[in-house]
Amino acid sequence: MSLTPQRTEPLSHEELYLFDTMGFVKIPNFLSRADAESCRTELLDFPSRLMEGRGDKERFDDLVVRSKNFRDLAESEAMRGFVDPVVNQPYRLIESYALRRESQSVFYLHNGNSEVLTYGEGRSVQRNMSFSHTFHDGKLFCMFIKVLVYLTDVREPDDGPFCYLQGSHKANYPWFADPDSSGRAPALTKENFPSLDHVRAEAGDAIVLNEALLHGTLPKESQGERILMAFSYAPAFVTDWKEIDLRSPSIDKLGHY
Amino acid sequence: MSLTPQRTEPLSHEELYLFDTMGFVKIPNFLSRADAESCRTELLDFPSRLMEGRGDKERFDDLVVRSKNFRDLAESEAMRGFVDPVVNQPYRLIESYALRRESQSVFYLHNGNSEVLTYGEGRSVQRNMSFSHTFHDGKLFCMFIKVLVYLTDVREPDDGPFCYLQGSHKANYPWFADPDSSGRAPALTKENFPSLDHVRAEAGDAIVLNEALLHGTLPKESQGERILMAFSYAPAFVTDWKEIDLRSPSIDKLGHY
Amino acid sequence: MSLTPQRTEPLSHEELYLFDTMGFVKIPNFLSRADAESCRTELLDFPSRLMEGRGDKERFDDLVVRSKNFRDLAESEAMRGFVDPVVNQPYRLIESYALRRESQSVFYLHNGNSEVLTYGEGRSVQRNMSFSHTFHDGKLFCMFIKVLVYLTDVREPDDGPFCYLQGSHKANYPWFADPDSSGRAPALTKENFPSLDHVRAEAGDAIVLNEALLHGTLPKESQGERILMAFSYAPAFVTDWKEIDLRSPSIDKLGHY
Amino acid sequence: MSLTPQRTEPLSHEELYLFDTMGFVKIPNFLSRADAESCRTELLDFPSRLMEGRGDKERFDDLVVRSKNFRDLAESEAMRGFVDPVVNQPYRLIESYALRRESQSVFYLHNGNSEVLTYGEGRSVQRNMSFSHTFHDGKLFCMFIKVLVYLTDVREPDDGPFCYLQGSHKANYPWFADPDSSGRAPALTKENFPSLDHVRAEAGDAIVLNEALLHGTLPKESQGERILMAFSYAPAFVTDWKEIDLRSPSIDKLGHY
Repeated sequence: MSLTPQRTEPLSHEELYLFDTMGFVKIPNFLSRADAESCRTELLDFPSRLMEGRGDKERFDDLVVRSKNFRDLAESEAMRGFVDPVVNQPYRLIESYALRRESQSVFYLHNGNSEVLTYGEGRSVQRNMSFSHTFHDGKLFCMFIKVLVYLTDVREPDDGPFCYLQGSHKANYPWFADPDSSGRAPALTKENFPSLDHVRAEAGDAIVLNEALLHGTLPKESQGERILMAFSYAPAFVTDWKEIDLRSPSIDKLGHY
Repeated sequence: MSLTPQRTEPLSHEELYLFDTMGFVKIPNFLSRADAESCRTELLDFPSRLMEGRGDKERFDDLVVRSKNFRDLAESEAMRGFVDPVVNQPYRLIESYALRRESQSVFYLHNGNSEVLTYGEGRSVQRNMSFSHTFHDGKLFCMFIKVLVYLTDVREPDDGPFCYLQGSHKANYPWFADPDSSGRAPALTKENFPSLDHVRAEAGDAIVLNEALLHGTLPKESQGERILMAFSYAPAFVTDWKEIDLRSPSIDKLGHY
Repeated sequence: MSLTPQRTEPLSHEELYLFDTMGFVKIPNFLSRADAESCRTELLDFPSRLMEGRGDKERFDDLVVRSKNFRDLAESEAMRGFVDPVVNQPYRLIESYALRRESQSVFYLHNGNSEVLTYGEGRSVQRNMSFSHTFHDGKLFCMFIKVLVYLTDVREPDDGPFCYLQGSHKANYPWFADPDSSGRAPALTKENFPSLDHVRAEAGDAIVLNEALLHGTLPKESQGERILMAFSYAPAFVTDWKEIDLRSPSIDKLGHY
Repeated sequence: MSLTPQRTEPLSHEELYLFDTMGFVKIPNFLSRADAESCRTELLDFPSRLMEGRGDKERFDDLVVRSKNFRDLAESEAMRGFVDPVVNQPYRLIESYALRRESQSVFYLHNGNSEVLTYGEGRSVQRNMSFSHTFHDGKLFCMFIKVLVYLTDVREPDDGPFCYLQGSHKANYPWFADPDSSGRAPALTKENFPSLDHVRAEAGDAIVLNEALLHGTLPKESQGERILMAFSYAPAFVTDWKEIDLRSPSIDKLGHY
């Protein structure tokens, strides 16, 4: 197998506008359906683990380590054409993985430009610098970009499509004023979240995502598998993605939060 | 030996204003002169290397690895009181070193908020995200903070004091339009740099520095030693300081630029 | 007649989040349907003029001058509760008018945070300071706010609802790269504008609008009247709304552009 | 008399850098000493008034109305070359005046990017939008620019030179936490204001000033007259400079604050 991106041009001016204003841009037919299916087949043979939390997501780590096909894709000119114009720095791949879900799964809203981050001993701020971003002289500078590649169709709202709050990647306020209330998280509906929107996608489509967006997925209620790959890029001074202990005062800790 | 910072309060409102508007703030008498001298004596026994470039600076790396005294200082409440209010994130120490210089040495102007960064194949941008910084809701968020601790006096202009261009940590334009001209660098004078300013310091004084400032030192012309320690802090997702190859297209490269 | 706003609380935290991230927030039932109808009846007796351009909009100027009812509304605590938290300056009313349209009318997309402004002799910039806005320490500072009050229902897409490009009030790029192409303006469809969205409203509803949003209305194809009032507020140093000659080099000209 | 500016080039890249980072830039020899003296002679015949407050400044209003010489200067290509590149909007002259002072006079620090503004009934914010400014795609957008033209020499600190706090035009914090304490204003010394700096000027020199800078003059202790002209420019939607009642809730009030 060798993957052949169907779309090799860098982001256009119109796509950059959409990425800048919406926090993401969808690239239809990044891979052919045949390539998407061969990705799916290959990675299902990799070891996987159940993600913590709801226990409804199976994660396949380190795709680029396990297969030259995925490595070549992560390094391809096609992929660079998405990352170059939104990072605009020397950059690196900080993680590559796949997520597989079935019915009755959800990925709740997370990130957001000004949500409350608590850490250390009672410290509380409204900025997570690991996905900060800015603009200068015609160029975007994003600290954390994810390229999602769909390997199955997510056509209907009950297929668990990507969802987000409009404009939340540039929000000045937090939506969730009390982060500890996340245990009693309100359902992902228009009533609870008037600016909630979602994006349909088909196998082979890609989404280039600014991680500052407050995003997740609607609940997947339909039968069948939902599987996608994620390739995360960051400026070269950012370490591989790994979670740190937010409460630790250690000045050695290395990782994300 | 055990070091006892003379100043243990966190940055005051007035000091935060100075740090925010000037890009640095001087903390007089952070260490006693006796402690500064004991630091100097201890670290001169460590291994050192001549820095590349002009070959006029001797660098002692990894202070906190070599001595519990330096580690304790880097972790002290006193030091945290400088770093906490300007980083406002879970953070880590990304380097600790000392620099020793004698007469006829200089540290030319470097960094700056909008200086030209060239990398890869002819790419050119005006932002280095490794020292980006922002402000939100009463808090500063700096990506790269250095605490300089003077171990000798730098009283006169010819002692090679810390120098900087006023307001350059928030510059929207580059000062050095052509970065390749740095070989023919203009002398550090008021004529060449109308907004150039410098800071006198004595043994035991500290400077808390936003690395976005376009800064360096005036030439040291006087006799005698100039030696200081530097402790660099960054958000926890930032790797230890190490230089990458700016031209490499590798997506594995890890480090600063 | 005397108008009694049904909603008198200032914008809530949730409404401020929506205004900040979407560029507007809808206030259902600001006026009762009966009050909306009495506004409509009263103002239709005022003098009006056909607006330039497409000639499909009838404009009634200076509502607050013509009737104490409208003046009281513009000055009401209810209205101030929308304006105070998004202007956060001493402010004034710079215009008050109504727009009446029938079938086959449209209000094309205008404004936007970074659209191209040409003026003088060939000068071209990507910012119109008359609707600039910023955020500082928990507060929004908008230069130009409009409160739209619907006097008839706009329920279906063919009723000509308010439309906008998501996130365009904070866009860093222009959508319309060539402003002179506006004569051949592309139709207001999802195909031409992937981030286009619209808002349904009923008589008595209000929309609090940040004028930096790239906004307009979908074409009205349905029969019947579409009529709304607009009250514009700005910081007190801004003059009454009036259009200047963009090409004039005069340093006396006073007005908007 | 007819004035002939000695300097007619628009601001250079270096001058724009200085203006951006320092909040002002000095233009030596904008007028010849002879022209400066003829300005002084002409305007001293105009009516004047004692300014409120300390009563130590004599103000001559509406220079451009009283004399074609001043009008021509305000409209000259030379002056436009300072204003165009820092306003970057259709603009107008909102005031023109001269200030004359003698010994024992001072102009205390005022403005600043984040000083506390109180207005209305107990409202308090940290932004005055009448001198807000931003940067986009290589261009500065200032809401209020003043060009000061010196008509006498201000060579020594006791001549009452222009003074400012470094970087205060981009401050995120207020320096004066309690604005009501301004009655007991601390003396303008380095001890009270560590980032205080001042600028010497000679007759004919000009200073192009971003009004967001926290600025004033050092006390004039020396004998003799200190006199300068000021020309203020703003985007065309800004009214002529006039002071409003900050406490008034009127939505008709028009003016500055």
